[in-house]
Amino acid sequence: MAEPLGAAALDQLFRTARTHNKWQDRAVSDETLRTLYDLVKLGPTSANCAPARFVFIRTEEGKEKLRPALSSGNLEKTMTAPVVAIVAWEVKFYDKLPVLFPHADAKSWFTGSAAFAEATAFRNSSLQAAYLILAARSLGLDTGPMSGFDAAKVDAAFFPDGGCKTNMLVNLGHGDESGLFGRLPRLDFDEAVTLA
Amino acid sequence: MAEPLGAAALDQLFRTARTHNKWQDRAVSDETLRTLYDLVKLGPTSANCAPARFVFIRTEEGKEKLRPALSSGNLEKTMTAPVVAIVAWEVKFYDKLPVLFPHADAKSWFTGSAAFAEATAFRNSSLQAAYLILAARSLGLDTGPMSGFDAAKVDAAFFPDGGCKTNMLVNLGHGDESGLFGRLPRLDFDEAVTLA
Repeated sequence: MAEPLGAAALDQLFRTARTHNKWQDRAVSDETLRTLYDLVKLGPTSANCAPARFVFIRTEEGKEKLRPALSSGNLEKTMTAPVVAIVAWEVKFYDKLPVLFPHADAKSWFTGSAAFAEATAFRNSSLQAAYLILAARSLGLDTGPMSGFDAAKVDAAFFPDGGCKTNMLVNLGHGDESGLFGRLPRLDFDEAVTLA
Repeated sequence: MAEPLGAAALDQLFRTARTHNKWQDRAVSDETLRTLYDLVKLGPTSANCAPARFVFIRTEEGKEKLRPALSSGNLEKTMTAPVVAIVAWEVKFYDKLPVLFPHADAKSWFTGSAAFAEATAFRNSSLQAAYLILAARSLGLDTGPMSGFDAAKVDAAFFPDGGCKTNMLVNLGHGDESGLFGRLPRLDFDEAVTLA
């Protein structure tokens, strides 16, 4: 029977973890990115549909391809991040369902309804973006998630065939605490939760 | 500088964690639900918008209110779960932004565009649903997330004034391993990830 993780782990995952804006000059290896994906992939998605596709941008060339899509406020922190993850979803994610969910004809649930397929892809790739954030923290990395960018430009630059749609960006690296802003307030339990 | 969590914590969060269908006869206290929310609320959302609202259903009366919205495949595991969390988003989440994001007029970004507001609420409440899943696991709880239900019926039963829209359900408790299915396959790194 599982016990709660210790205080240090809860701090690292949630309580002292912060969204970072400035990065230490410390690389994130491709091996770490593989370890990261091997955690992220295990997070649950509906009918195991796993619609997220990830582009891990580590090179200057990749960053320059991304630059025109970034808002001014997100530019410097993104261009200086060791890795920028594009979290996208595959439009025809359901083509993988005969493998990912073999005991039912789940593909047919989506091929008949583009709106249902898109809502499923958006919801579940968002879940997977959160798994990426928390898996990165669990590996001792810091993150900087963003949705303030021109998604159509990212799509055109990285998915020119239209096969994927960009959902979020997540900067990854080791944060420099000198770039942190103060922690913003959160909603109290009674503002966000109802007991029934 | 943060180090990776130990193997047991990575197992509990990702590697041996499973979506549960059967529950031990063991309650989840309201105190645990408060501890859980106090972790979930710290997960990052865009412009700190925190659109998710949670209903934690622990009573028979609450479960009966939910019953008509459940699909047959999700019925028994949900009616027997110690707690069922409704993860919804507040339609006018942006009314809280003068408090949550006080240094900019972020509310005005949303009041002019219902489509942008809804996409933001859907994306970020999905992130928060994933924070709920992983925060629960970090506290030693098991989860059973679901999107196969009639959201309009949940909305009508729990949010009759239309102020919130239901995104997902997440069963919470201590899982009974005898109800587990086999682990389904995942996409390999090269199927889901591009290095750039």
